[in-house]
Amino acid sequence: MTHPHALAQSVEVLAFDVFGTVVDWHGSIVRELRALHPQVDADAFASAWRAGYGPSMQRVASQAGPAWVRVDELHRQILDEILPRFGLDALDEAQRRHLNRAWHRLDPWPDSVPALQRLKQRFTVCTLSNGDIGLLTHMAKRAGLPWDCILSADVFRAYKPDPAVYTGAARVFDVSPAEVMLVAAHGYDLDAARACGLRTAFVERPLEFGPGASAEVRGHERDDLHACDLLDLADKLGA
Amino acid sequence: MTHPHALAQSVEVLAFDVFGTVVDWHGSIVRELRALHPQVDADAFASAWRAGYGPSMQRVASQAGPAWVRVDELHRQILDEILPRFGLDALDEAQRRHLNRAWHRLDPWPDSVPALQRLKQRFTVCTLSNGDIGLLTHMAKRAGLPWDCILSADVFRAYKPDPAVYTGAARVFDVSPAEVMLVAAHGYDLDAARACGLRTAFVERPLEFGPGASAEVRGHERDDLHACDLLDLADKLGA
Repeated sequence: MTHPHALAQSVEVLAFDVFGTVVDWHGSIVRELRALHPQVDADAFASAWRAGYGPSMQRVASQAGPAWVRVDELHRQILDEILPRFGLDALDEAQRRHLNRAWHRLDPWPDSVPALQRLKQRFTVCTLSNGDIGLLTHMAKRAGLPWDCILSADVFRAYKPDPAVYTGAARVFDVSPAEVMLVAAHGYDLDAARACGLRTAFVERPLEFGPGASAEVRGHERDDLHACDLLDLADKLGA
Repeated sequence: MTHPHALAQSVEVLAFDVFGTVVDWHGSIVRELRALHPQVDADAFASAWRAGYGPSMQRVASQAGPAWVRVDELHRQILDEILPRFGLDALDEAQRRHLNRAWHRLDPWPDSVPALQRLKQRFTVCTLSNGDIGLLTHMAKRAGLPWDCILSADVFRAYKPDPAVYTGAARVFDVSPAEVMLVAAHGYDLDAARACGLRTAFVERPLEFGPGASAEVRGHERDDLHACDLLDLADKLGA
C-alpha cells in the first residue's frame, strides 16, 4: 500500500463502480418488489434477477460487431425469463416496463451522497460502470449522486473488465492511469483496473447481496486503499 | 411554434450547446490573455483562435477511420499557428499548455448557472457539444454548471452537425427525438437538430464574439422557442 497521503496527492480522478459499490441494488429491488407484489419472495427475486446479469453481459461482450445492447434490454430479457418462476407471468407490458425501470431507481448506500460531496471538493468524481449513460443519469438525478461526469461502458464500447474501459477513463481526462483510482466493492473489477495501471480502493459492502448472503471479502494487500465505506474512503484521502 | 406549455409537457431532455450558448468563450479568452500578456490585442487573439476551430474540426470530421482528436489538440494546433502573429512565439511548452487549458476555464454567462439549476428541477439537462468529455467536465466543475450528464462528440464518435450526435442524444435517454430539445445560439446546430426530429430553442448571445462584433440573429419562425437568455428559457418552459 502506498501511504494514503501520497496517494491523495497523486490521484486526480476517482472512478466509481456503481451497482453494489455506490447503490444498494439488492435492497432497492426488494423494496420495489415488496411494494408491488408482497406475496413474492423478494430476496430470492432480486438475487435471481441480478444473477442473470453477468452471463447476459458476457454474451453481449463476446459478440463481434458494432451492436450495443442497453442494460435495460439485458435486465428486461432476464426479467421475462424469471417472472414465471415467481408466479408473475401475468404481468402486462406496462407493469414489466415499470418494474424493469427499478434499476434506474436504486437507492444509494447511506454514506454515498455525503462522501461524494466531500470527495468532489478535491477530486473529479465519475462513474465507471457497465450501466449505460441514460440509466446512470436517471439514477443520479433521483438519488442526488453529485457526479462530475458519467462514464460508462457505452462511452468506450466495451464492458468492464475490458481494459479499454479503464484506460479510456484516464484518456478522457488526459491523465496517466496512475492518476485515476477505481473505487469498487468487487475484486475482479479492481484487479482489471490495477492491471491497466490504475490505483485501486476496495470498499466493503457486506450487505450487497442482502442481509442473509455473504459479500466479497478482500485482503488489504492488493489494493492501494481498503475502506469500510465511502466516508471512510474520504477520511483516508483527506477529503 | 408549438405553445410553450405543451412543449414543456412533451420534452424530457434539454441538450445544450456549450461554447457561446452556455459559456462566454470570447470574454474568457480575453480575460486570460489580458492577465498574462497585456500587450497583445486580446480581442483579435480570441477571434483568431476560435476562427481556426471550425476548419480544424471539419478536417478531422472528414477523415475516415477510428482516429479521434481531442479538442485540446485542435486548440493547441491553432494556438501554435497564431502565436507568431501576435508576437508570442517565445512562449515555452509549459506556457502554451497553460494557455491552451484556458478553454477548460471558460466562464458561464451570468444567467447560465441559475437557469440550469431551475431547469434541472423539471428536465434532464445535459451538454451536447463538440468539446470532449474531459474538457466539459473540468469546465463544469470550475464554473458550477450543474449538468445531469455530459454528452459530447466523443460519446458518439461524430461531430455536430452530424445527425449521429442528435439522434444519439435521444437514444442515450431512450426517448424519441421530439422529447429532446436542443438549446443553442447557432442556427446551423438548431437546423441540424430539427432535421433529426428534435425540438429547438434559439438563445440570443449578442456578445458571443465580443462587444464589437455582430452575433447571429435569428427569426422566430423556425424554432420551437426563442429566448433572450437561459433564464428567459426557464420562464418560457415553466421551470
